[in-house]
Amino acid sequence: MDLWTILRRAGDETPDRPAVIDGKVRLTYAEARDRAAALGDRLRKRGVEPGDRVAIREPNTHRFFLAYYASAAIGAVLVPLNTRLSEREAEEILEDAGVRILLSGEDFEGLAAAAPGAARSFDPAPVSPDDTAQLYYTSGTTGRPKGVMLTHRNVVRHAEAAALELGLSGEDVWGHIAPMFHLADAWAVFAITLVGGAHVMVPRFDAPSVLLAIEEHRITLSNLVPTMLARLVAHPEAGRRDLRSLRLILSGGAPIAPGLVRRTIETLGCEYLQTYGMTETSPYLTLGVLPEDLRRLPLPERARYLARTGRPFRGVELRVLRPDGTPVAADDREVGEIHVRGETVTPGYWNRPEETAAAFREGWLATGDLAVVDEHGLVNIVDRAKDMIVTGGENVFSIEVENVLFEHPAVLEAAVVGVPDEEWGEAVTAAVVLRPGAPTGEGEIRAFCRERLAGYKVPKRVLFLPDLPKTGSGKVSKRVLRARLRDGAG
Amino acid sequence: MDLWTILRRAGDETPDRPAVIDGKVRLTYAEARDRAAALGDRLRKRGVEPGDRVAIREPNTHRFFLAYYASAAIGAVLVPLNTRLSEREAEEILEDAGVRILLSGEDFEGLAAAAPGAARSFDPAPVSPDDTAQLYYTSGTTGRPKGVMLTHRNVVRHAEAAALELGLSGEDVWGHIAPMFHLADAWAVFAITLVGGAHVMVPRFDAPSVLLAIEEHRITLSNLVPTMLARLVAHPEAGRRDLRSLRLILSGGAPIAPGLVRRTIETLGCEYLQTYGMTETSPYLTLGVLPEDLRRLPLPERARYLARTGRPFRGVELRVLRPDGTPVAADDREVGEIHVRGETVTPGYWNRPEETAAAFREGWLATGDLAVVDEHGLVNIVDRAKDMIVTGGENVFSIEVENVLFEHPAVLEAAVVGVPDEEWGEAVTAAVVLRPGAPTGEGEIRAFCRERLAGYKVPKRVLFLPDLPKTGSGKVSKRVLRARLRDGAG
Repeated sequence: MDLWTILRRAGDETPDRPAVIDGKVRLTYAEARDRAAALGDRLRKRGVEPGDRVAIREPNTHRFFLAYYASAAIGAVLVPLNTRLSEREAEEILEDAGVRILLSGEDFEGLAAAAPGAARSFDPAPVSPDDTAQLYYTSGTTGRPKGVMLTHRNVVRHAEAAALELGLSGEDVWGHIAPMFHLADAWAVFAITLVGGAHVMVPRFDAPSVLLAIEEHRITLSNLVPTMLARLVAHPEAGRRDLRSLRLILSGGAPIAPGLVRRTIETLGCEYLQTYGMTETSPYLTLGVLPEDLRRLPLPERARYLARTGRPFRGVELRVLRPDGTPVAADDREVGEIHVRGETVTPGYWNRPEETAAAFREGWLATGDLAVVDEHGLVNIVDRAKDMIVTGGENVFSIEVENVLFEHPAVLEAAVVGVPDEEWGEAVTAAVVLRPGAPTGEGEIRAFCRERLAGYKVPKRVLFLPDLPKTGSGKVSKRVLRARLRDGAG
Repeated sequence: MDLWTILRRAGDETPDRPAVIDGKVRLTYAEARDRAAALGDRLRKRGVEPGDRVAIREPNTHRFFLAYYASAAIGAVLVPLNTRLSEREAEEILEDAGVRILLSGEDFEGLAAAAPGAARSFDPAPVSPDDTAQLYYTSGTTGRPKGVMLTHRNVVRHAEAAALELGLSGEDVWGHIAPMFHLADAWAVFAITLVGGAHVMVPRFDAPSVLLAIEEHRITLSNLVPTMLARLVAHPEAGRRDLRSLRLILSGGAPIAPGLVRRTIETLGCEYLQTYGMTETSPYLTLGVLPEDLRRLPLPERARYLARTGRPFRGVELRVLRPDGTPVAADDREVGEIHVRGETVTPGYWNRPEETAAAFREGWLATGDLAVVDEHGLVNIVDRAKDMIVTGGENVFSIEVENVLFEHPAVLEAAVVGVPDEEWGEAVTAAVVLRPGAPTGEGEIRAFCRERLAGYKVPKRVLFLPDLPKTGSGKVSKRVLRARLRDGAG
């Protein structure tokens, strides 16, 4: 149960299958195995020992793929850095993690160069399933970055569960479109290799390149955050490319509007699966797989259910609890906090015993996410605990308002946050990006919401922006948005 | 991580897919789920409580399939009985296991009858992954049957690993040809359901019926013991049936001749995979997946490697050790005992703390099987340490047969060994030294055994010798005896 074994086996058992396609670089599984072994050997020569941290700052390339396996093979801990971090932010992480070497640029290109047959003489480090394989830094609520430790067991179990849940096979071709330094895409580095499927690297997101890559490489699967999906399906090229190879688009990391689910299914002609997860859980916690009776609904109605969070991911134990620790009623109304347990859950934060202790309650990870449970036992996130807006004494879940905004034909992207307000405590505030050539105004948007929402949920202010601030993984950064709106308001 | 969840999910998520085909009975996954729930409810009404043992004596039928899930759903422990056991043998097991109810005959038919929608009101028992799901009886070295406990975790992990190893999918159709009371077939009850594939029940083995079933139901996969395979490929119908649906035949439970591997591949037109396992390990420990360089060999030579035991099954840690506990050299020569560890390994024998303790060394199960390791790390069994004979897919422990021989008044000494046999894999063969002046014959000895043992345990041949070869310490040398009988036969 270690990561190196996954690539080594694929190399031994399906040596000639395509492993990685990265522009002109095309590696078979035997070649990828050999290159990863050579990279491992070269890192050792640079003094990297078992347990050492190896950071990487790299877009989605074949080198990134190799680094995941090479570090695992020598018992080192890979620390993927968000490529959008400032130097100061990156340095803070390198220091916190005590990184021995940073893989980046030309030096890294040399380390990751071809080495036919290298795996034959390579001697992998003895690795225990509970050894840390990777450290992912997350800002968390405090704003101080902390490293989520994931063990070989965490990552391998997630890969196995994902392969089974999604029916992955050697015929699958994964498009690495979302950044590989995040688990939202990185899990596929392991799960797709586990079944001998192919990895197509897409270093930057732009809609025409992604659509072309799908057609050219016959991509069957990918994960896209809602903002990417919205741009993809709205792009005129979407109607011109041959996208028939696509069998499934996953999305997660943010709530999605039912209207966008519907457009995705109609435009891309494939299935859609909503996911919910977090870095601390490798990442998936639920999948939006529908129960029997809901699968036969016509698309517009089905899309409402497909946009929901879904049922627990294989191997995850999930409970939605009241503050007193008892489960909420399965009535689709009572809100509780999601607690999870399982072999894909992190052992904790790097060198942060107090924050680790605070995250767990008797072995269960308290996610901080709020949800309801329906009669089928299906979970639906109503909001991230920190994203709930309290306005005039009422709780407003931003997703509900965002879903309405997405129904408006002129809206391309939307995010709703609470802005401190003398009168309301927090004022429901919408930030909207309009479709090109779709003029509208604040009054029209508010009137549109008023027809569809309780008065206290209607945005007090609607701001039109050229784009929304994003996190490294492409999600809307509500933290940054909130700060901007607060400053702009002040 | 429990068995009921596997069927419940398949019923919820692929309700209309074919689950079980058993003659005229055809169940979709929704129907199978409902029937299993109803069977669970009915067993509860008969007083079965969590932890109770429920025995079953049944050929491969849809009812057997349902019983595996129904017992798991109510937290009971299923005890599958070999259908060939004598009454005396069966009673010994029922008593040892403390069985509350035996599923068999017409009564069982009533319990397993249709019950549309039963799953909607069904309330499964809370089950922990480490609760025992099944007890499989094996005679062991003492000749006294003991129950191997398998937990939900053991069985689910094996199903997941098998699904990944074999690339199982909802398109697969498994032929339940070998008996379902043995794990050699029973693991597929769980692994195939996990991926929503179909189960075709073949209640008795005869070559023409099996060949017809493959053609009629488009069977893609099955496990056959070498004796069955030999009959199948030798049958004239094999050339007349459309067997193109078959993608893979697994075999195990006994060594296989390379010639038979070759004929299987040629005649059935599919891949072949050798397996090695034991009841105590759910069962697979290795798969005969070939490394890169051996896959390109021409069939006659490749078949020699395909007949070998192979590399560790996913999730199994396997070591081949010298008596002092150090690993043997990877030179394909030095013989050691196989020790294994992993989540598919039994926690032990039912109510047998001493035998359980004796089977484990510091958390590793000592299999009693002897093997060599080659330069690729591939394992090859050279001998069963425990004197077990594998005949027609059944395990016969020689001591059990010897004990019966010793009951015969004319028998002075007796030793039972397996002699290589084209038809049976190994033929149970008895060497007997008679008391002076106590005349008897082969027919009388075999009849004596037949009254006291299941038919497959009765020696195929009885040889009368003036004495038995002994080791220095005076024990019968089975090694020498085996060699003599083999030479004598040749």
